[in-house]
Amino acid sequence: MQSPLELADIVADILARLRDRGPRVHCITNTVAQNFTANVLLAAGALPSMTISPDEIVSFIASADALLVNLGTFDAERRAAVDVALAAVDTARMPWVLDPVFIESSPGRAQYAREVLARSPSVVRLNPAEFSPLFGGEPADDAAPRVAKACSTVVALTGGTDIVTDGVRHVSLANGHAHMGLVTAMGCAASALVCAALAVETDAWLAAVAAIAGLGVAGEIAGATARGPGSYAAAIIDAVHGIDRAALRAHLKVS
Amino acid sequence: MQSPLELADIVADILARLRDRGPRVHCITNTVAQNFTANVLLAAGALPSMTISPDEIVSFIASADALLVNLGTFDAERRAAVDVALAAVDTARMPWVLDPVFIESSPGRAQYAREVLARSPSVVRLNPAEFSPLFGGEPADDAAPRVAKACSTVVALTGGTDIVTDGVRHVSLANGHAHMGLVTAMGCAASALVCAALAVETDAWLAAVAAIAGLGVAGEIAGATARGPGSYAAAIIDAVHGIDRAALRAHLKVS
Amino acid sequence: MQSPLELADIVADILARLRDRGPRVHCITNTVAQNFTANVLLAAGALPSMTISPDEIVSFIASADALLVNLGTFDAERRAAVDVALAAVDTARMPWVLDPVFIESSPGRAQYAREVLARSPSVVRLNPAEFSPLFGGEPADDAAPRVAKACSTVVALTGGTDIVTDGVRHVSLANGHAHMGLVTAMGCAASALVCAALAVETDAWLAAVAAIAGLGVAGEIAGATARGPGSYAAAIIDAVHGIDRAALRAHLKVS
Repeated sequence: MQSPLELADIVADILARLRDRGPRVHCITNTVAQNFTANVLLAAGALPSMTISPDEIVSFIASADALLVNLGTFDAERRAAVDVALAAVDTARMPWVLDPVFIESSPGRAQYAREVLARSPSVVRLNPAEFSPLFGGEPADDAAPRVAKACSTVVALTGGTDIVTDGVRHVSLANGHAHMGLVTAMGCAASALVCAALAVETDAWLAAVAAIAGLGVAGEIAGATARGPGSYAAAIIDAVHGIDRAALRAHLKVS
Repeated sequence: MQSPLELADIVADILARLRDRGPRVHCITNTVAQNFTANVLLAAGALPSMTISPDEIVSFIASADALLVNLGTFDAERRAAVDVALAAVDTARMPWVLDPVFIESSPGRAQYAREVLARSPSVVRLNPAEFSPLFGGEPADDAAPRVAKACSTVVALTGGTDIVTDGVRHVSLANGHAHMGLVTAMGCAASALVCAALAVETDAWLAAVAAIAGLGVAGEIAGATARGPGSYAAAIIDAVHGIDRAALRAHLKVS
Repeated sequence: MQSPLELADIVADILARLRDRGPRVHCITNTVAQNFTANVLLAAGALPSMTISPDEIVSFIASADALLVNLGTFDAERRAAVDVALAAVDTARMPWVLDPVFIESSPGRAQYAREVLARSPSVVRLNPAEFSPLFGGEPADDAAPRVAKACSTVVALTGGTDIVTDGVRHVSLANGHAHMGLVTAMGCAASALVCAALAVETDAWLAAVAAIAGLGVAGEIAGATARGPGSYAAAIIDAVHGIDRAALRAHLKVS
C-alpha cells in the first residue's frame, strides 16, 4: 500500500496525463447533469460529447477514449443508446463507467442497472443509497470489497468518506466538503471524471482513485472561497482546473 | 392579516421546516430549467428528482412529497409524463404546482394548461404574460383573487411585485431584483420552491407566500454582491441557502 | 473597410439596439447548451425560447425574430423540429443561423448539416474542426471567403482568432480568452448571439461581426476577474450584460 504522499504523486501523475492527452469522453447522461458534467471534464482537460441518439453513438464512440453510462432521467431513448453504446464499447475494448443514479427510487431502473452491471463496467461509481439495490442488502461499506471482487469491477462509493476498492486494494478518501451534496450532478461529474482518468490509466483502481481523490481535494479547496452552494459549483470547477501536485500533497486525506 | 414581522416569522418557520425535513420534490420540468431548479431546491434543503419517463414516474412520485408540473419545452413525452403523474398524485393526495411556462406563445400548450388547471393544482405559479391565456382576459392583478377563488387554487403571480392570493387572503411582496428577470428558469425555480414549501406546510397559501417571499428576499440579498446576471445566478442560490429569520425580518417587503 | 474604432462603434450600435428592442430568439439547440445559451441571450437583452416540439415550433417562430439551428445532441426529434422550423422561417423570411456542432464526429450529422446549409442560412457559425466536413477539404482560414461566396452566406469561424466573412468583406477578430474553450456551449452561445444581432441588423455580415466581437471582448473582460473556467462562465455573462461602447473601443482587436 502506498503512503499518502506516494498516492498523492500517483494521482498527480494521472491528472497531469489527463491534461496532456485531452481524452474524449462520451457521456450518456441525464439532462440535469449534462452541462455541469461537461464543464468538469473540460476543466480537467478532457473533451466531452453527449449525444444519445442511437444513430450517432457508434460514430461518437469510435473517436472516444471512454464511455459514461449514467442512468439519471432514464427513458426508452437512453436505454436504446446504452444498448448500442455497450456493443460498440465491447468491440473497441474501451473502458466505461456505470453510474446507477437514483435506482433506489425505481425498481425498473434498478433491474436495468443490474443488467448493465453484468456487462462488466471498468468502474461502478455510486452513493450508499444506490448500493443495496445494485448489489444486495449488506451495508455498503462492508460489502464493497466483496462485490467488487465478485463482479470483477472497481467500486467507487462516494459520500462523507469515499471508498475505492477492487476487492484486493482498498482506499478510504476523506476529502470533500458538505456543499458537494448540495450541487446537483456532483456524483455524475465524479463518474465522468473517472471515465477521463480511465482513458489515461489502464489500472482501473488507480484511475478511480485519481478521479475521486482529485475531485475531493478540489472540493475541499473550493470550500475555502465559496459563499454558498451556488458559488461553490463554480469554485469546484475552478479548483479542478487548478489542481496540481502541491495541492494534492497538501490536502489528500487517505486511510 | 399578519403584520410584516409576523409574516416574516411564519415564512422563517416554513423555510426552517423545509431544511429540517428535506422533502422530496419530483419535477416534470423543461430541460433548460432542470439544473438551476435542482440547485435551488438543494440550497433550500429539498431533494429534487427530475425523470419524465412514464415508466418511472409512478415510482418516483411514490417516494416524493410534492410534484411540479412545468410546461416548458413541452412535447409528447412530457405530456404523457404529466398525465401519469397527475393520476398518481390524485391517489396519493399529494400537493402539486402548475407552472404554465410560455403558454402565451403556443395555443396548444395554453389549451393543455387549462386542462391541467381543471385537475386542481394546489398552487399555480405564473407571470403576467401567462395569466390571460390561462384564466381569461382581465388584467392579472385585478383578476387574480377572483380566479383563485373560482378555481379553488392559490395563484402566485410573480413579476416586479409578486401577488399571492387564494381569493380570500391576498399579499403583495415587493422584494426581488431586476437581475431575477435575466436568469433563465428563475420562475421555474420559484415554482419548484413552492412545491418544497407545500411539502412541509398544509396551508397552500402560506406555503406559496413562504416560497415566493423567501426567493424574493434571497434575490434582494444576491443583488448586493453580484456583478451581473451570471454571478447573480450563483449568488441567489447562495442566498437561498443562507436565508434565515433575521434576513427575512430585515428585508421582507409586504403590503 | 472600417477602422477599428469605427467598427467598435458599429458593434456598439448593434448591441445597443439589441438591448433596446429585446428581440425573441427561438433556439433549436442541444440540451447541454440550453441553459448557458439562454442566459447569454438574456444578458445581451434578447428573449430566448427553446421548445423543439414539432407541434409548437410554428407558434413560437411566429412570435420570434430569429432562429438558431444547432445540431448538438442531434436526434430524430430535433431533426423533425428543424424541418418544421425551416419551413416556417422561409415563409416568414426570418434570419437564421446554422451551428453544425460536432459534425466531424458523425458522418450522418455532417450529411444533414450539408442539407441544412443548402437551405441558405443567414450565417454559419462554426469552429475549424467542423469546417471541412461542411464545406470540403481546404484549410478553413483560406477557404472561408470562397465558400461564403459560393453558399451566399456569412461564415463566422471562431477559435483562437475569429474570422467573419461573406466572401467580399472579411474581418479577423483577436479578442477572447483561453477559458472560452473550457466552458461548454461557448460556441453555441456565440451562434445564438449572432441570431439576436440578426434580429436588429439586416446586414448579416455586420450582425455576425457584432455578435462575435461583442462576445470576444466580453470574454477578454471576464478573463480579468475569473479564477478558473467555472467562475469564468459566470463572469462572461456578467461581461456580456455590461459591455458598452467604451469597452468595445478599448478592447476590440481587429485586422
